Amino acid sequence: MTTASSGMTNADQIRALIEDRVRAIADKDIEALVARVAPGVISFDALPPLRRIGSEAIRARLQEWFGWYDGPIGYEVRDLRVTTSDDIAFAHFLYHVAGKMTNGKAVDMWVRTTMGLQKIDGVWVIAHEHNSVPFDAESGKASLDLTP
Amino acid sequence: MTTASSGMTNADQIRALIEDRVRAIADKDIEALVARVAPGVISFDALPPLRRIGSEAIRARLQEWFGWYDGPIGYEVRDLRVTTSDDIAFAHFLYHVAGKMTNGKAVDMWVRTTMGLQKIDGVWVIAHEHNSVPFDAESGKASLDLTP
Repeated sequence: MTTASSGMTNADQIRALIEDRVRAIADKDIEALVARVAPGVISFDALPPLRRIGSEAIRARLQEWFGWYDGPIGYEVRDLRVTTSDDIAFAHFLYHVAGKMTNGKAVDMWVRTTMGLQKIDGVWVIAHEHNSVPFDAESGKASLDLTP
Repeated sequence: MTTASSGMTNADQIRALIEDRVRAIADKDIEALVARVAPGVISFDALPPLRRIGSEAIRARLQEWFGWYDGPIGYEVRDLRVTTSDDIAFAHFLYHVAGKMTNGKAVDMWVRTTMGLQKIDGVWVIAHEHNSVPFDAESGKASLDLTP
């Protein structure tokens, strides 16, 4: 996963990071994903716990996540917005995740992602990430059937 | 809700914005809250829909939210981190929300918040906000009993 940064704007570099992520998820390439995460990343994930701290926790989470799927994971990004200065940025998008789990269940849902990014030694890394689905207050159930 | 900015660092100004938010929620002061939101804000909220766009949608959401509570809303911020440049920033924290709803139910849960901020005409405003709780993949239920 190499992101050529010469001649690219900061926003383009961050968009490339997210395109790289889509490819790395398709390839279940954990190292490529962890390489773009800051060592002290703070992650608020769609599944418990409330937060994970550090890139090793992200690695463990990815191993678990990829292990649940039988075959490929569909990961389609929509409505990406990037807001950036020279060295601090945030980005958000919706993604559609789809696939078949080893327990036979099908996954087919939209998730919201927000990233906080920092440019360190000329490379954008994810310092904070927040993934979630909303939940229905009446039933207490996660809302897994919403579409954009 | 005035945030004195003279002599304050950008991080201090954003911390003050969040302190102002805590007070405004205690006071159920919708106008004070909407005043710190960019007109085109994109919000990923803990409750459906997937996203809300624009400060008027935030106003409607706050009216609904405040209307659910019988009496005060407890809102305690923990582990705030602010990362800022001159005009772009992101911030994240956990908050504990507590109170009694008009339907008699008690609310007592921890929520994750991420904000993307922009400094416009010398004032920091929220351009993007993401609030959520995780959900349990087995049961499909929102995880409302997690603690930091």
